Amino acid sequence: MKIALLQLNSTIGAFAANRQKLVAGYLAACAQGADFVLAPELFLCGYPPRDLLQRADFIDANLAALDETAQFVGAVPLCVGYVARHPDRPGRSLRNSAAILQHGRSVWHTHKSLLPTYDVFDERRYFEPGNSAKVWEFKGKRIGILVCEDIWQHAGALDFIDYAYDPVIELSHQPQLDLLINLSSSPYHYDKPPMRQKVCAAVAKTLGCPVLLCCQVGGNDQLVFDGYSMLVDSQGQLKQLGKGFVEDLLEIDLNAAAAAFSFTYDAVQDLYSALVLGVKDYFHKLGFKKGCLGLSGGIDSALVGCIAADALGKENVLGVAMPSRYSSASSLEDAQKLAQNLGIAFETISIEGPFESYLNLLTPHFHGKGPDITEENIQARVRGMILMALSNKLGYIVLSTANKSEFAMGYSTLYGDMCGGLAVISDVSKQQVYALAHWINRQREIIPLSSIEKPPSAELRPNQKDTDTLPDYSIVDAVLQDYVEEFLSPEEIYKKRHYSKELIDDLIHRIHCAEYKRRQGAPGIRVSRKAFRAGRRYPIVQKWK
Amino acid sequence: MKIALLQLNSTIGAFAANRQKLVAGYLAACAQGADFVLAPELFLCGYPPRDLLQRADFIDANLAALDETAQFVGAVPLCVGYVARHPDRPGRSLRNSAAILQHGRSVWHTHKSLLPTYDVFDERRYFEPGNSAKVWEFKGKRIGILVCEDIWQHAGALDFIDYAYDPVIELSHQPQLDLLINLSSSPYHYDKPPMRQKVCAAVAKTLGCPVLLCCQVGGNDQLVFDGYSMLVDSQGQLKQLGKGFVEDLLEIDLNAAAAAFSFTYDAVQDLYSALVLGVKDYFHKLGFKKGCLGLSGGIDSALVGCIAADALGKENVLGVAMPSRYSSASSLEDAQKLAQNLGIAFETISIEGPFESYLNLLTPHFHGKGPDITEENIQARVRGMILMALSNKLGYIVLSTANKSEFAMGYSTLYGDMCGGLAVISDVSKQQVYALAHWINRQREIIPLSSIEKPPSAELRPNQKDTDTLPDYSIVDAVLQDYVEEFLSPEEIYKKRHYSKELIDDLIHRIHCAEYKRRQGAPGIRVSRKAFRAGRRYPIVQKWK
Repeated sequence: MKIALLQLNSTIGAFAANRQKLVAGYLAACAQGADFVLAPELFLCGYPPRDLLQRADFIDANLAALDETAQFVGAVPLCVGYVARHPDRPGRSLRNSAAILQHGRSVWHTHKSLLPTYDVFDERRYFEPGNSAKVWEFKGKRIGILVCEDIWQHAGALDFIDYAYDPVIELSHQPQLDLLINLSSSPYHYDKPPMRQKVCAAVAKTLGCPVLLCCQVGGNDQLVFDGYSMLVDSQGQLKQLGKGFVEDLLEIDLNAAAAAFSFTYDAVQDLYSALVLGVKDYFHKLGFKKGCLGLSGGIDSALVGCIAADALGKENVLGVAMPSRYSSASSLEDAQKLAQNLGIAFETISIEGPFESYLNLLTPHFHGKGPDITEENIQARVRGMILMALSNKLGYIVLSTANKSEFAMGYSTLYGDMCGGLAVISDVSKQQVYALAHWINRQREIIPLSSIEKPPSAELRPNQKDTDTLPDYSIVDAVLQDYVEEFLSPEEIYKKRHYSKELIDDLIHRIHCAEYKRRQGAPGIRVSRKAFRAGRRYPIVQKWK
Repeated sequence: MKIALLQLNSTIGAFAANRQKLVAGYLAACAQGADFVLAPELFLCGYPPRDLLQRADFIDANLAALDETAQFVGAVPLCVGYVARHPDRPGRSLRNSAAILQHGRSVWHTHKSLLPTYDVFDERRYFEPGNSAKVWEFKGKRIGILVCEDIWQHAGALDFIDYAYDPVIELSHQPQLDLLINLSSSPYHYDKPPMRQKVCAAVAKTLGCPVLLCCQVGGNDQLVFDGYSMLVDSQGQLKQLGKGFVEDLLEIDLNAAAAAFSFTYDAVQDLYSALVLGVKDYFHKLGFKKGCLGLSGGIDSALVGCIAADALGKENVLGVAMPSRYSSASSLEDAQKLAQNLGIAFETISIEGPFESYLNLLTPHFHGKGPDITEENIQARVRGMILMALSNKLGYIVLSTANKSEFAMGYSTLYGDMCGGLAVISDVSKQQVYALAHWINRQREIIPLSSIEKPPSAELRPNQKDTDTLPDYSIVDAVLQDYVEEFLSPEEIYKKRHYSKELIDDLIHRIHCAEYKRRQGAPGIRVSRKAFRAGRRYPIVQKWK
């Protein structure tokens, strides 16, 4: 049997465009001799549609798109994810479902049983679980079809949650399957793609049959879907692998003897690819082409400049240096050099005029209080305002350049360097920023070495260094990892790291206190296991720690 | 039997303070002869703790606080909400539970069965449901104890969701109850308090026994809990009612014959009270005293000024008029008059200097493009920056003053008038702003009549009126209500309102397009059935409509 797997990029709510893309993929696959065609979870409406699911007209449009798709489907069946109504109350009124279309209509369907409701997922907010695992018989083969999370508990990949039901176990008690298909919209995080292979391998071994994973690709808001659809054989060996971060059509011949191979995975390269795709789809799906950003001469804005140039094309990116009395000459040079290396437009706009104007205006209202962080924030905000003015006048989306370590510590200025439509690296730690910079420079110096090597500085007062306020970022990042991603207690972090208890408590206190800033930050691209806001939802007003 | 009901205000994560408050209330109630004392749902950790629940140390602290509370409890039992562990996997690892403490330890417990996961609620993200309704026998009485949502499905108040289980029905099949107690953390929205009475009455009639509702009071982030604990008799008649928006101790004598009375409810006054409590607790629980806001002379900022003065004390509020070349003299007079009427501090800071400075700086970078919304936004952003500088230098929290109708339409400036720690009236429609202004002026003119009566204007260009850009706010608010709160489709709105289809589509399009702004807005106080962000969670990148 020849199966064609459509690893496609859908846009939330773009029913006509999604349907057209699906039909085109289906017809192309049929022309190439496919016996059966697959498309990802919730493909027709896009994933995650969030509270759009609560609109009856949205559900109607999704069902209409399914019907319209079926009109193009002949003898070769097409399996695709959609939102089904669940009229048999009690229970939620919707289901996350997969349909098989054939001969112009839906001939079979099944419902997702395990509904992720943790981290970035909210499926219990919308769906009623299925609680059964169904097998579809086609050309004498028994094919189990499950949706995304339905195979994840089985592999033990979900260490902090347990469903009362395991669809894989249910299938293992039924007559031998010939194939297990999983339709998926599984978002990227660092090191996630190889994790999916482990899940598929575990399921294949339990069921004693090949597992075929059909993945979505593309960026939707804060989530990036990385593709990497795959086939593993009944021993759990990888036999076929879709491309990462682009659309792909995978042709699978279950009868052909393919050699097993290993997933050669470059985590840093994939992190970069995820950020590029996140920016690209954020812009293009919103209908924007051009991005601008402040280039400080530092490593963070340099990295965002590289990502923007790759995502949008160098001709669509404007870097703006906005020096002040505290900017070093070398910073301006580094900013300019980066822009040259990338081939992006570059402008220099001094912030001294507005900065001076604010100081003159406000000093009488400061009741004799001397300089403090206020004046630093004014500089950052003048820069933010300049970028927003360019955005308003010329149609750029502003890319904000603060990294995750800064977001964690609150070491960024609300309405200043936090301004923007997208906070590109807000889920990328400073250690990862360095790793990405070195990866970008692997063949030639694109990011000036001095941007990478100089001590981090906001340059908002004379000779300022980030370490005046914060410990070294290697320490910040370690505690960030332990406290936010691993959920360790301060005592556990102390036992693991042997930093002083005061230091650990201070860093945790900063993480909590900065929640109010993060709440107003631009949306970021989720690339870690635990992204602030998208997957970590904290109160602002709370006294814990 | 004498029952004391502690309608108290807890702070999320403030275990020691919450416990002390609970113990003090318990001891005072015992001293007054109570036989049994009640406190609200999840009182010890505060509600909603959100992802703090995913920290094992947070759960430990909550269990320790329960144990420590029990040390103070003697023969008189205390019933209080807490987070229980659920070690019997599979299932979520936590439960939303109620314990009865007596003689120094926990002697009984029950678990919430219906876990709201819609609108502002996310309980399935954290908890495993209980699925049983338990009865506690005390002094010869059979007392059913349920937690919050457990009684709501029964009354048909939840029209869009169905649980497969109804704890009230289960109790109705058991031997006759003498009392049903409900521990609650039920957040306020417009007209919610009388709704609770209907729910209690329906349950009382089904069970043929009195219903005692123990409510939380206070503001936690975006939610305000309004109090109004109540007793209804077995016929569903209201017999006792706790105060609204303040702590209260309700003494209930089930044997005493009290006259039934009706809930005289002033919806506008309560809306005002909710906003005042929301501001007060946001500041005080964060440890802040002072607030500042821009006073434009318009009705929105005037309303926020009144709320701030009531919440924080007039001595803690600073109003700042920030006139430009486009401000009318009467606007400045109205702002000053309001400040005088409220007795708050008032300063005037012209934005002309920085505005001019930006125009001089940026015009060469605008590539010959003429004035447009850019220059309007610069003015709004200069104002935001001035307020933020006062905040940084002098310790104010900035109160942002945009209303819900503006948020819906995107008729507000990101990083401009949207700046602030709290968006006080971001869930209050323009029609409600007028109603509140008239209510404030019911005895004397506090808000200048000219602020109320003049046509709304942002005053960002000569003779600008909001109606240059938007239809009348009565139309905006009608579509906002229909589309956002009632989930009507454009066609249904057309049938109901007979506005032109183009107008309806345009307003809906604006609501969707402004999602990116709202995502970066300051948190607001939720006072409607459907608050943007808190209860309405939409993608930014989507093509629906």
